[in-house]
Amino acid sequence: MNSPNTDKPVVVTLSAPEDGPPPGLEPLNAYAHIVHTSDRQGLLDAIADADVLLVTDFRTSLLQEAWPRAKKVQWVHATSAGVDAILFPALTESAVPVTNARGIFDNAIAEYVLGLILSFAKDFMGTFALQRERRWRHRDTERIQGRRALVVGAGSIGRAIARLLKATGLEVAGVARHHREDDPDFGTVHATEALHDLLADADYVVVAAPLTESTRGMFGAGQFACMKPTARFINIGRGPIVQTDALVAALRDGRPGGAALDVFEQEPLPPEHPLWQMPQVIVSAHMAGDFIGWRAALSAQFIDNFQRWRQGQALNNLVDKRRGYGPAHQE
Amino acid sequence: MNSPNTDKPVVVTLSAPEDGPPPGLEPLNAYAHIVHTSDRQGLLDAIADADVLLVTDFRTSLLQEAWPRAKKVQWVHATSAGVDAILFPALTESAVPVTNARGIFDNAIAEYVLGLILSFAKDFMGTFALQRERRWRHRDTERIQGRRALVVGAGSIGRAIARLLKATGLEVAGVARHHREDDPDFGTVHATEALHDLLADADYVVVAAPLTESTRGMFGAGQFACMKPTARFINIGRGPIVQTDALVAALRDGRPGGAALDVFEQEPLPPEHPLWQMPQVIVSAHMAGDFIGWRAALSAQFIDNFQRWRQGQALNNLVDKRRGYGPAHQE
Repeated sequence: MNSPNTDKPVVVTLSAPEDGPPPGLEPLNAYAHIVHTSDRQGLLDAIADADVLLVTDFRTSLLQEAWPRAKKVQWVHATSAGVDAILFPALTESAVPVTNARGIFDNAIAEYVLGLILSFAKDFMGTFALQRERRWRHRDTERIQGRRALVVGAGSIGRAIARLLKATGLEVAGVARHHREDDPDFGTVHATEALHDLLADADYVVVAAPLTESTRGMFGAGQFACMKPTARFINIGRGPIVQTDALVAALRDGRPGGAALDVFEQEPLPPEHPLWQMPQVIVSAHMAGDFIGWRAALSAQFIDNFQRWRQGQALNNLVDKRRGYGPAHQE
Repeated sequence: MNSPNTDKPVVVTLSAPEDGPPPGLEPLNAYAHIVHTSDRQGLLDAIADADVLLVTDFRTSLLQEAWPRAKKVQWVHATSAGVDAILFPALTESAVPVTNARGIFDNAIAEYVLGLILSFAKDFMGTFALQRERRWRHRDTERIQGRRALVVGAGSIGRAIARLLKATGLEVAGVARHHREDDPDFGTVHATEALHDLLADADYVVVAAPLTESTRGMFGAGQFACMKPTARFINIGRGPIVQTDALVAALRDGRPGGAALDVFEQEPLPPEHPLWQMPQVIVSAHMAGDFIGWRAALSAQFIDNFQRWRQGQALNNLVDKRRGYGPAHQE
């Protein structure tokens, strides 16, 4: 391993092997000693000297395993919006602050959701299928203006979705843990207790919530049964918020009438999974927020927060580790 | 045929046989004697007594053939935005006013265009193709915020497109026959002379112009050669505005990088046409504006104008027959 040979703080980055080191961290070299690692042994070697951990690989338990050796760590930054996969008990119980990538993916995800809604409304799946068969078949299609969207989750992603859908003429309602009035993006945010009533009115149900103990399995048979047969269910949040088997059964029963899923309980979605070939289902590979340039944008956000840390200022985007999400979700 | 047996004015409707009579005209029965026809002989029989013609079938020359027998016609209404197919010389030269369906399709077409733009940006064609093969493959995709759209045509459809694209964060420029400043939807509308310079800057080029002698064949090899390799070309106006063979060649050369076509020089697009299976081309069946309920909306618009006509008021949506488009295009 590389040992620090200056008195600069040590930043250890943990990436998936296929991703390589985070791009664009070069400006940090003047202020920090950066150690890149992407495997178990590399992390075990590096973590003892780490002052800061920059984690871009959330799908492993490597950090949890190496954590007992992390004696100096003062701050953990996760380059994701959801921090469910990084929060293990020893980290949650420690005094070490965790920050996340709040904001980076918001507008890209909002665009993606709007695109999914328009794909359903304008039947682009049907258009592309007919095109493959060289068949000219006119259809009347749906308007989106005046349709009702229910956004589940009032964090920064849910808010960006709400703003964009409103700008294009949809009526938007929001639901989150706590009821509140006079919300700048939603007007009223309804409490989770109102979910069933809200589901019955919605043309589009968009899950943009963090994965927490409150949201795990939140959508099951009872929730789908409340939806209109014409409603479409969109999940760009986290897979385990949805009971997948219940969703498959509900779609087969025709309620909701369609689904677009970017996240799944098991990722990658296995090739034999029935969702791949269900009519009116759109499957994408956990990519809704990943605009071209997102890795560099994440690094720039980390560098900005690093300068705050170095100068003793309060960190941006602190996660409430017990609740499992950032400040925008906490009200 | 049905002969008028009252002194009510006679409204003759001409529809395509597959469409049937226009729905929702029942409220007119109190004020008019309505004769529905959908074939040559029916029109020849009915037109002599017609005071008003309501034309929903634009793809035939039936009206032109029957026109010499139309001795009483005081008004022709076409239930389309474009009136190119209804304007034959004897009608253009006559004093009979022609009105169109201005406004009915505007917002639906704008939604459709936004959906096409998002389909390109988020690579939904790629997503649907991978889904058919049950393949999980993450891609980074494009943002639409800050991208430049050039709208060709500053009529009511082009304006609706401009407003919606601006609302979702695109930068929008407009081009029409005459330059003007301080346009409420476009800011500056550029004159056609500026087209080549504008094409070089555009990420999305959207054709929303009427088909006239000025716009026929407007997009050919020279125009496509101005575009960026990453630009996408969208035509929801009229097929003959585009030189189709030149577009096919340009797409093969990689400039523009993609196209979405809802209208064609020949409709239906023949099954053997190469456009059907070109990568990065989206083919749809002249349906961009046809939202569920559009036929009833067209009838309601006609009824409203009929009441104006009956009461001697000025008709809405008068077409400039020599220019071939409605008032919003004329400035």
